[in-house]
Amino acid sequence: MAQFINKKEHIVQDTINGIVAASGGKLSRLDGYPFIRVVVRSDWDKSKVALVSGGGSGHEPAHAGFVGEGMLTAAVCGDVFASPSVDAVLAGILAVTGKAGCVLIVKNYTGDRLNFGLAAARAREMGLRVNMVVVEDDIAIPDLPKPRSVAGTLFVHKIAGARAEAGGDLGEVTQAAQRAAINAFSIGMSLTSCTIPGTKREERIPDGQIELGLGIHGESGAQQVPFLGAKQAISDAVAKLEPHLTAQPYVALINNLGTTTSLEMSVLTTELLNSRIGSKISHVVGPAAMMTALDMHGFSLSLYPLSDEDTALLTAYTPLPAWPKIRRFLEPKLLSLPDISAGSQPLPSPHPKNSALIRACCEALIFAEEDLNALDAKTGDGDTGATVATAAREVINRLDHLPLADLTQLFPAISRELTQTMGGSSGVLLAIFFSAAGEASASGHAFSSALKFGLNRIKEVGGAKLGDRTMIDALEPALGALDAGLQSAATAARNGASKTATMARANAGRSTYINATQLKGHVDPGAEAVARVFEHLQRQFS
Amino acid sequence: MAQFINKKEHIVQDTINGIVAASGGKLSRLDGYPFIRVVVRSDWDKSKVALVSGGGSGHEPAHAGFVGEGMLTAAVCGDVFASPSVDAVLAGILAVTGKAGCVLIVKNYTGDRLNFGLAAARAREMGLRVNMVVVEDDIAIPDLPKPRSVAGTLFVHKIAGARAEAGGDLGEVTQAAQRAAINAFSIGMSLTSCTIPGTKREERIPDGQIELGLGIHGESGAQQVPFLGAKQAISDAVAKLEPHLTAQPYVALINNLGTTTSLEMSVLTTELLNSRIGSKISHVVGPAAMMTALDMHGFSLSLYPLSDEDTALLTAYTPLPAWPKIRRFLEPKLLSLPDISAGSQPLPSPHPKNSALIRACCEALIFAEEDLNALDAKTGDGDTGATVATAAREVINRLDHLPLADLTQLFPAISRELTQTMGGSSGVLLAIFFSAAGEASASGHAFSSALKFGLNRIKEVGGAKLGDRTMIDALEPALGALDAGLQSAATAARNGASKTATMARANAGRSTYINATQLKGHVDPGAEAVARVFEHLQRQFS
Repeated sequence: MAQFINKKEHIVQDTINGIVAASGGKLSRLDGYPFIRVVVRSDWDKSKVALVSGGGSGHEPAHAGFVGEGMLTAAVCGDVFASPSVDAVLAGILAVTGKAGCVLIVKNYTGDRLNFGLAAARAREMGLRVNMVVVEDDIAIPDLPKPRSVAGTLFVHKIAGARAEAGGDLGEVTQAAQRAAINAFSIGMSLTSCTIPGTKREERIPDGQIELGLGIHGESGAQQVPFLGAKQAISDAVAKLEPHLTAQPYVALINNLGTTTSLEMSVLTTELLNSRIGSKISHVVGPAAMMTALDMHGFSLSLYPLSDEDTALLTAYTPLPAWPKIRRFLEPKLLSLPDISAGSQPLPSPHPKNSALIRACCEALIFAEEDLNALDAKTGDGDTGATVATAAREVINRLDHLPLADLTQLFPAISRELTQTMGGSSGVLLAIFFSAAGEASASGHAFSSALKFGLNRIKEVGGAKLGDRTMIDALEPALGALDAGLQSAATAARNGASKTATMARANAGRSTYINATQLKGHVDPGAEAVARVFEHLQRQFS
Repeated sequence: MAQFINKKEHIVQDTINGIVAASGGKLSRLDGYPFIRVVVRSDWDKSKVALVSGGGSGHEPAHAGFVGEGMLTAAVCGDVFASPSVDAVLAGILAVTGKAGCVLIVKNYTGDRLNFGLAAARAREMGLRVNMVVVEDDIAIPDLPKPRSVAGTLFVHKIAGARAEAGGDLGEVTQAAQRAAINAFSIGMSLTSCTIPGTKREERIPDGQIELGLGIHGESGAQQVPFLGAKQAISDAVAKLEPHLTAQPYVALINNLGTTTSLEMSVLTTELLNSRIGSKISHVVGPAAMMTALDMHGFSLSLYPLSDEDTALLTAYTPLPAWPKIRRFLEPKLLSLPDISAGSQPLPSPHPKNSALIRACCEALIFAEEDLNALDAKTGDGDTGATVATAAREVINRLDHLPLADLTQLFPAISRELTQTMGGSSGVLLAIFFSAAGEASASGHAFSSALKFGLNRIKEVGGAKLGDRTMIDALEPALGALDAGLQSAATAARNGASKTATMARANAGRSTYINATQLKGHVDPGAEAVARVFEHLQRQFS
């Protein structure tokens, strides 16, 4: 599976460089490449207790993404899924630890325990005060004496980080970290394993199955169960979490294990809210990718019981974009739907001249039905004539119900009729045309000026201009000539329509994807319709 | 491809519910399900210009995730990759538009233009002031008259949103949106298409190829080019962007199109910094998933020229977690590496008794080499004897260089010797043991008390306790009995070691994954080694 990386050996360096470069100067790194890859807060003055974490890479944004005000002081990054060396951890500790001391937050993997443990020993030999807290939040395997640590570790980073930022001493910060480590518990689920760069993905999870209780390194989950959708997946995870709940309210950290989409993560969030434990979860962190397993298509839920003290620490300020704020978890609030049919329903009003005008326009289109269909068949799907004729017949049927005597009402009324009877893009555009004409009339524009206002609006909304091989090519010249009389308008419309037959390319509308050979010599059916209307009006009224 | 969704028809509702539920009450939705899916700022009082956007779903967190203080007022969500209906857009407009008016930010897709356009017309008929701005930021196809809009739309949301939040009037907000729409330009690249829920993914991109210039709906890219890693991909994208650059500094929005991992996004960020245009990019937004195309494995780069005015608007406060703050884009800052070999290098000092003691311990382990290997072969890989004997020989060789006369220096010195000569977890644990013993000595503990301190430290770091079938099972009883003399210690160590042969399960260390049948009757080699040492010391010194 192709990935956006360069040489495998450079992955961790490239990743760290990107994280540091995009931090706006808030992060720095130790000058220890290639083996010592440590990300440090740029503004650190050692006046407070330092928090150092890290471990194997491949869990981004953990851990480097959580370095900053209110969370970690430094992250020590190993190779993908491999613990950093003792020297790297020691360099991290030495870089950030002052008289206030340092707490190491270590995930429960043998390599991490040993390498962080020995680095702590060396730092102590150098006179530094270093404590170490091991996180074991994974409840996947109930009787495992030393559970793995997964995304629940982030509660430890945040709670201890806030305590340290607030000036807590080494004992207080250690205690906060220990409390968080003891209280957090997590379960993961995934539809796939992950692709370790340079190797093929182990396809051990059969179609139709999902793994429950799996770690963040592609190691096998505790069990495989049938995958029956988001609701069932959350239900399976919740069944593991529920026995651990006490009477307290909980915060749920909803973690994307890698390549679960934002859409899916939100669906899972909804199902968590609707689950058996939804009412016990008063707050959420996420959904977001916080502690990932490369490209694993899965999620994890980490729960933490909220005391007033820990709520305050979890809420304390941190500017880190990788840490989604803790928020209350609430049933979606509903706002009542506005009345979209509001607007006055105008009373019918007679006006013989306008009635005759509209009828003539409609008749022109009905007469042209066959011709327009034929024209459209050459460059499109052959239904332009039927589409406009159907709408025209319906407008004639509804003539007596229209507010004919008042243009400011008549134009919008025609617009509404077209919305109901005329499909396709052209129906919407004509509806917009008449609506805008009504708007212009209401603000004092005369008839032809109002129509020109409508024309400009549909050019804006539809994005077509003169020469794009659309009805605009007839309509714009016609309206431009209208003040000189129907004869001029009809001639202008016809000339405009004829020109479309010479346009080699359609730049807007239905014919955009038709090539020049097919278009050549054929008038655009929309432009033809407009020309037919003006020619008919000229015959009837001038 | 399995996805964390439920019924296809419910995807958009489920997604919106999750986004609203996790917003901490900051978002609400209109009570219009199933057809009207509009997300609204809960705190909106219509006193400022409203900003409404939206379009098809499947681009999460866009658009609902960008509703909130300083960005959108409402998002109108269509089905996956389908424009919302006119009624839905109109409901959104009516829900949030007051006397100050409303600006619609519309992506350049025919359905969106028409449906938002007609909804705007209807809203105007109802007396509302509504402007519409269409975004066309995709530069994939150079001579396309109406380019698609992709992630550059987010610049429009942020710039117009900040202007509106600051109290700009309708004209000012519209102008800001238009300016942002004109100035933003984007290019996308992807290794895969995307999986529309309920359908199979179109596998049109062959292995070894990548698509350049593709949209956010799985539509084909402008071209397929060979995929040669992250550096080349960025170089290809940059070649498209570069001709559009002027002398101004730019901000780059680095967008994850769906399932690119955090690690990959950071690698791409590094390559952008190192690219031909890296020095022209003064700021970044991201990397983050902002405008996605479901599960597309790709990215897009959107550039925007920075003026003072727009920098201020892009920097203006918004609490939305989906909007990564704009940050300066800088070469990673390096901090000098601490001297990890610091700590005093102690001078050798003679001490015949300590020398003899250490030599005896080492000899005991050298004598036991074959036996320990044989024991290890029954439950492990048969190298325990060799591992400890090698280290013991080296310690004997180095005896004259050790600070033998001062326990506070001697213990750490032995610890360092073991780090260099003894591999495996046990080497690290023994190094930690002696380091901690040195720490205890330095703070006044007597010999046996210092060793007990070391024992406790390795129990803490290694996670093993009495009964877990490790060397602890011999070491802990031996040290407990040491003050009563070497005879007692040796007996206790032997008894402890013997007990390990009856332990059915190893709870820590190397044998954790070995089953009971294999373990039964065999003494743990680590515990045996400890017993051999104490027995040898007893013979030599008591």
